[in-house]
Amino acid sequence: MLEKIQKPNDIKKIPADQLPALAEEIREFIIESLSKTGGHLASNLGVVELTIAMHRVFDLPKDKLIWDVGHQSYTHKILTGRKDGFETLRREGGISGFPKRSESDCDVFDTGHSSTSISAGVGYVRARELKKENYSVVSIIGDGALTGGMAYEALNNAASLKSNFIIVLNDNEMSITENVGGMSSYLSGLRTASAYTGFKMDVTKALNRIPGIGPGMVDAMRKTKSSIKQIIIPGMLFEDMGLTYLGPVDGHNIPQLIKTFQEAKRFEGPILVHVLTQKGRGYEPAMRHPARFHGAGPFDVKTGLPVGKSNPTYTDVFSTVMRKMGDRRKDVAAVTAAMMTGVGLKRFSNMFPDRCFDVGIAEEHAVTFAAALSLGGITPVVAIYSSFLQRAYDQIMHDVCMQNLHVVFAIDRAGLVGYDGETHHGIFDLSYLGSMPNMTILAPKNLWELSDMIKFAVDYDGPIAVRYPRGEAYAGLKEFRAPICLGKSEVIHEGSRVALLAVGSMVKMAEEVQKQLKERMDMDAALVNARFVKPIDEELLRSFADTYELVVTLEENVKDGGFGERVLAFAEEEDLPFGVEIIALPDRFIPHGSVSYQMKQVGFTPEDICGRIEEYYRKQGQEER
Amino acid sequence: MLEKIQKPNDIKKIPADQLPALAEEIREFIIESLSKTGGHLASNLGVVELTIAMHRVFDLPKDKLIWDVGHQSYTHKILTGRKDGFETLRREGGISGFPKRSESDCDVFDTGHSSTSISAGVGYVRARELKKENYSVVSIIGDGALTGGMAYEALNNAASLKSNFIIVLNDNEMSITENVGGMSSYLSGLRTASAYTGFKMDVTKALNRIPGIGPGMVDAMRKTKSSIKQIIIPGMLFEDMGLTYLGPVDGHNIPQLIKTFQEAKRFEGPILVHVLTQKGRGYEPAMRHPARFHGAGPFDVKTGLPVGKSNPTYTDVFSTVMRKMGDRRKDVAAVTAAMMTGVGLKRFSNMFPDRCFDVGIAEEHAVTFAAALSLGGITPVVAIYSSFLQRAYDQIMHDVCMQNLHVVFAIDRAGLVGYDGETHHGIFDLSYLGSMPNMTILAPKNLWELSDMIKFAVDYDGPIAVRYPRGEAYAGLKEFRAPICLGKSEVIHEGSRVALLAVGSMVKMAEEVQKQLKERMDMDAALVNARFVKPIDEELLRSFADTYELVVTLEENVKDGGFGERVLAFAEEEDLPFGVEIIALPDRFIPHGSVSYQMKQVGFTPEDICGRIEEYYRKQGQEER
Repeated sequence: MLEKIQKPNDIKKIPADQLPALAEEIREFIIESLSKTGGHLASNLGVVELTIAMHRVFDLPKDKLIWDVGHQSYTHKILTGRKDGFETLRREGGISGFPKRSESDCDVFDTGHSSTSISAGVGYVRARELKKENYSVVSIIGDGALTGGMAYEALNNAASLKSNFIIVLNDNEMSITENVGGMSSYLSGLRTASAYTGFKMDVTKALNRIPGIGPGMVDAMRKTKSSIKQIIIPGMLFEDMGLTYLGPVDGHNIPQLIKTFQEAKRFEGPILVHVLTQKGRGYEPAMRHPARFHGAGPFDVKTGLPVGKSNPTYTDVFSTVMRKMGDRRKDVAAVTAAMMTGVGLKRFSNMFPDRCFDVGIAEEHAVTFAAALSLGGITPVVAIYSSFLQRAYDQIMHDVCMQNLHVVFAIDRAGLVGYDGETHHGIFDLSYLGSMPNMTILAPKNLWELSDMIKFAVDYDGPIAVRYPRGEAYAGLKEFRAPICLGKSEVIHEGSRVALLAVGSMVKMAEEVQKQLKERMDMDAALVNARFVKPIDEELLRSFADTYELVVTLEENVKDGGFGERVLAFAEEEDLPFGVEIIALPDRFIPHGSVSYQMKQVGFTPEDICGRIEEYYRKQGQEER
Repeated sequence: MLEKIQKPNDIKKIPADQLPALAEEIREFIIESLSKTGGHLASNLGVVELTIAMHRVFDLPKDKLIWDVGHQSYTHKILTGRKDGFETLRREGGISGFPKRSESDCDVFDTGHSSTSISAGVGYVRARELKKENYSVVSIIGDGALTGGMAYEALNNAASLKSNFIIVLNDNEMSITENVGGMSSYLSGLRTASAYTGFKMDVTKALNRIPGIGPGMVDAMRKTKSSIKQIIIPGMLFEDMGLTYLGPVDGHNIPQLIKTFQEAKRFEGPILVHVLTQKGRGYEPAMRHPARFHGAGPFDVKTGLPVGKSNPTYTDVFSTVMRKMGDRRKDVAAVTAAMMTGVGLKRFSNMFPDRCFDVGIAEEHAVTFAAALSLGGITPVVAIYSSFLQRAYDQIMHDVCMQNLHVVFAIDRAGLVGYDGETHHGIFDLSYLGSMPNMTILAPKNLWELSDMIKFAVDYDGPIAVRYPRGEAYAGLKEFRAPICLGKSEVIHEGSRVALLAVGSMVKMAEEVQKQLKERMDMDAALVNARFVKPIDEELLRSFADTYELVVTLEENVKDGGFGERVLAFAEEEDLPFGVEIIALPDRFIPHGSVSYQMKQVGFTPEDICGRIEEYYRKQGQEER
């Protein structure tokens, strides 16, 4: 049946009674396909019927379906003619794992980060009103994404809309892991409210349908507060916010979903459709381990187990050192934002449940919360991916750095991240943290150094960040493990003429460059591990003046505002005589693909870097002539 | 009576019946004092009784009172022994207009930006629990600040607390101007709910007190949804979120406030006290014009009119050009975040109400909303102060720049802002925007250029920002008004040896420097208006190679990641032979005081800058010898 769907709206030709079978076919296709390529399995299996129903009711590309985060858009992609691209999913040149306007005119808003879809929806609705156009706008948001503050800001604004705007709350009781907080408890109350499962467009109607209306109802109300809230008006929190609430609806019942969306489409004003879905639906291993199947690599369909073995990652190292820290210092607490497993805090959380805070998808709150923990005498370690920590830029600046508080930032996924692409790279942190007064920034060269740096950061006093990349931890250079000293770099090899001054993950790269320089140019370059991105090792740089004619800085960060520019500015200020060649990422977004592909695209190979150094000397030679 | 209050808790010695008189005394003191120094009048007059009541019930500094934004903390300062500092309010070396831990141990969390107090409160509570300490934590937040997403993230987390945590909702129906959105409508519903004005600790009790309980009540419920919500359980939205709601309480009735806080203090878990206050209370002009008296300069107590005349500001210029833009192009819309008057959009809003969107204190939503407006065929101009736009760092990156959308950012209050101090300077924008791919950044030298640049930005296509300072617009250099061309600087004077390459507000400074260089060193320096901070004028810089030995960059932004480093990196990359001297702000936070005081503190005077250039030549001379 799937073969019949080659372009948008083809699904409307399928007889209604065959839709459940189509859903099963799509599910099998996704499981089979992702077992080879990897991808976001659990979230996509949860929304197959929901997506089918939306594609039946709405007219694409005229109507706008706006996905939140976007890692649940696979069925949408399949239904809009991209099924054949799935063998290239997230691969270089292949289709993205997220909605991409460049891929299809049925993708209307690019995403990757959480909680943006309602804001985007309100924007489309206002534009539609101003231009007097006529299309539906539907924002699909997960209950996890609803813990993000900007979703609430957007709900607050959606309330004032007078024309139709549909918000689909895709409630699977999870973000990547279990959800937290008051909103989550509230939603689970709605899920279990058994008195009502149909529509409640109107409170009056609702009251009429309640069995035993009158004195009996008042009795029922006396029982508990929560039963009152649920029985009288499910979704009243949303109604209070100025939205009309519709639901809850079974997210795997296609006819009911279709009927609901047809109702919702006719409504004037903002309407929230509460859809209950199950993450990983239809695939046993994903239902049992939704977190593991959030963003998974290739796996064996039968067992659900990952294919191929993997070496220890930096996340594993962080996980281990945090358990030790927790033991050693009773004042150390961990804070994360809906990525407990991803950042490696699960074990810490098991051992020290009181000292581990998962605040939900709420990076802003996480950081200011940590600032106050620090003032209250606790030493917080905030573990958030580099790209998501961007959400808390102002809180890091205003609440941590300005008060000069001891908050440790453990920044995972710093650098190029591969398959998730543009939205997930952690390539701006050295710049955005670097311009903040009082901030100290470190990056480890290998797994042991990560461990040492976290210990250093916990024992430090002030805002301090340790950033490290996704994936396998480098296990080389084990013999270099001198104690970490504030602002001091580590000289691994003293050479002559050229000094390679590398940040974190680029030390390994610099080792290769060093070897190749020897082979290609018979040059014995120095190899230095920067360790500190801020403050830089000024004394060392001054000492370079007598020894080296060129300092090559290497960092997995954009050039603007990064480590290299800091070194260069210092050299210029002090009038140091060496040249500075900055190896950093270019000023553009880098699409999905393998990390090694991305590295090649940006000239991050030993060959390219050696070429840059050769070119430097070629130019110098020309000038001298 | 005020004389008796010299230190924290002195207020507890005042007889209870004299407290209203004390409130009046404080009010008079604040009005009188601020009429000379300027300051945040309206918000402070609103919380006099509220602050008195809190200081009666809580024990400072043991208990933690956490102010949101903090511009309403004057009574708190007076009651904690800082009355005598008020003649120096916001002046160099004087007391800050915001809470400052460095000023008093009764200030427990520094603020300036909005919506942080609940996060900070949750942090203190968790620290108290972990350290098994015993103190009260009270977060005071305005209804305006409650439109900010991080306040909601924090509420969501507060819900899971088991020990006492008091949130005081200071509801004056305003942020700087009127509030917007669903939450605001909800709160005004609560204000007008007349059935209930006492405490409602428990729904059962509440139901018992409703007149005509039983069938009569059901009838009442049938009437309208909103009456149901208000009558049955005021504050149910907060109850739904997992908080206990207490209120609404008259915020100018001291005995009732004291009783309420005593109740709240005994409660186990998170409790929200809804306090109704009036902005500007007790001072007629401030009640009539709360926006004008939000942050006011010195004024005449009798008339309320500002003292001294003021010249047109950049905000005025923006206001005028936006009205013209609105006329000329029907697709231009304006977006702001609770600062309609501050950014100068009031007149645009009057002329084009459909095309002016004030989203509340919700910078994140504002930017993503604007991204979608752009996709929907509208040209949005997002006008937000530099310092507050930091809140939307990720949205600018992820939703605007990554999709390369045409969104115009009009960034007011860029540079040093004077009396508001550390938290309000706009001195990071060139760095944080500069590292974003696809972003174009401009800064005008004078009032005419701001106008031209806004027009250019509106006619451009892509992410583009125009940043300009607070206060009086420079009206010099009128004769230099060549059309704006992408990435092109403007040469105002061609000289020799030294080129002064200045960004925006620093062009005026560079004029002075140019004159002094002539006088002091008999040097005819070139004067160039950079116009574009990104992209820089590469062609011009290349042409400098043959003409100048030193390029001096000048910018009102931190050095890290700013304009100067971009110029330097380009010069190094192209091996251009001139030296680069970067005049930028230092890597530290700059306290409150007048702008000219702040300028002196950081060496932003023609004398200091000439000194830097002389020093450069002195060093060069030494090397040559």
